[in-house]
Amino acid sequence: MGLNHQPEAPQGGPMAAALDEARAAAARGEVPVGAVIVDAAGIVIAADGNRTRALSDPTAHAEMLVIRAAAARLGSERLTQCDLYVTLEPCPMCAAAVSAARIRRLYYGAPDPKSGGVEHGPRIFAGPSCHHRPEVYPDIAASPSAALLRAFFAARR
Amino acid sequence: MGLNHQPEAPQGGPMAAALDEARAAAARGEVPVGAVIVDAAGIVIAADGNRTRALSDPTAHAEMLVIRAAAARLGSERLTQCDLYVTLEPCPMCAAAVSAARIRRLYYGAPDPKSGGVEHGPRIFAGPSCHHRPEVYPDIAASPSAALLRAFFAARR
Repeated sequence: MGLNHQPEAPQGGPMAAALDEARAAAARGEVPVGAVIVDAAGIVIAADGNRTRALSDPTAHAEMLVIRAAAARLGSERLTQCDLYVTLEPCPMCAAAVSAARIRRLYYGAPDPKSGGVEHGPRIFAGPSCHHRPEVYPDIAASPSAALLRAFFAARR
Repeated sequence: MGLNHQPEAPQGGPMAAALDEARAAAARGEVPVGAVIVDAAGIVIAADGNRTRALSDPTAHAEMLVIRAAAARLGSERLTQCDLYVTLEPCPMCAAAVSAARIRRLYYGAPDPKSGGVEHGPRIFAGPSCHHRPEVYPDIAASPSAALLRAFFAARR
């Protein structure tokens, strides 16, 4: 898989911004997942959280929204110099979108054994027909991300 | 896989409308793939073709656009009574979106050995972590769909 384990969670920075988006999603009643995209200079060019309920859009995962926003902002289908930070392991749809967008590096928080598509399920980047594989950095600030999700679902039971 | 082979291409109907969308996409300089969604009554509630170039959006495949449009029109993230017709085997991103949207039946045209995600590549609906599997009907009007794609790419070589 070529996963690059970095146990240290960064202080501030893009993953902190993604966690802020996840908290904002929870406050809207959405599953708390947040994502940001940074350009080659490390500048955040898109930040958003899940909006599947608000938009009545099953594709409106945080990753999809920031990929679309960043591509629109850059006027390009390809985000070859961009990195994506997301608080949860992307699902197969989002992982395949990361590949389609030619994202350079993917940093994610908590693993998602039930619905993840990177290190679980169809393992989108592992297959021979995957045309672009980002560098993948899992377990970035995984603990606060998982805590947000646990609290969200516990409150709904 | 539970694929349901129906060698007869339907006359008119949703797949003909999807082929019209594919031709319109080609005329715009987009990879010629078209899709429509019909509701439980068989009424077309969304129709579109690829717009990745026009929208600078790597996620703007025909299937994604019609899923988003149909969900917005119905005001629901779930399209449980809806069927999707698309001229080419969906890629992994689109196949996973079909699953997320709870599409009832998926009809598609030409197989896509290079980039497909249903009967090729990660075979999205075949895995144990796939939470919703549509009924899948491949090879519906596959020949005109494949001819459109061949002509499009031949003209660009």
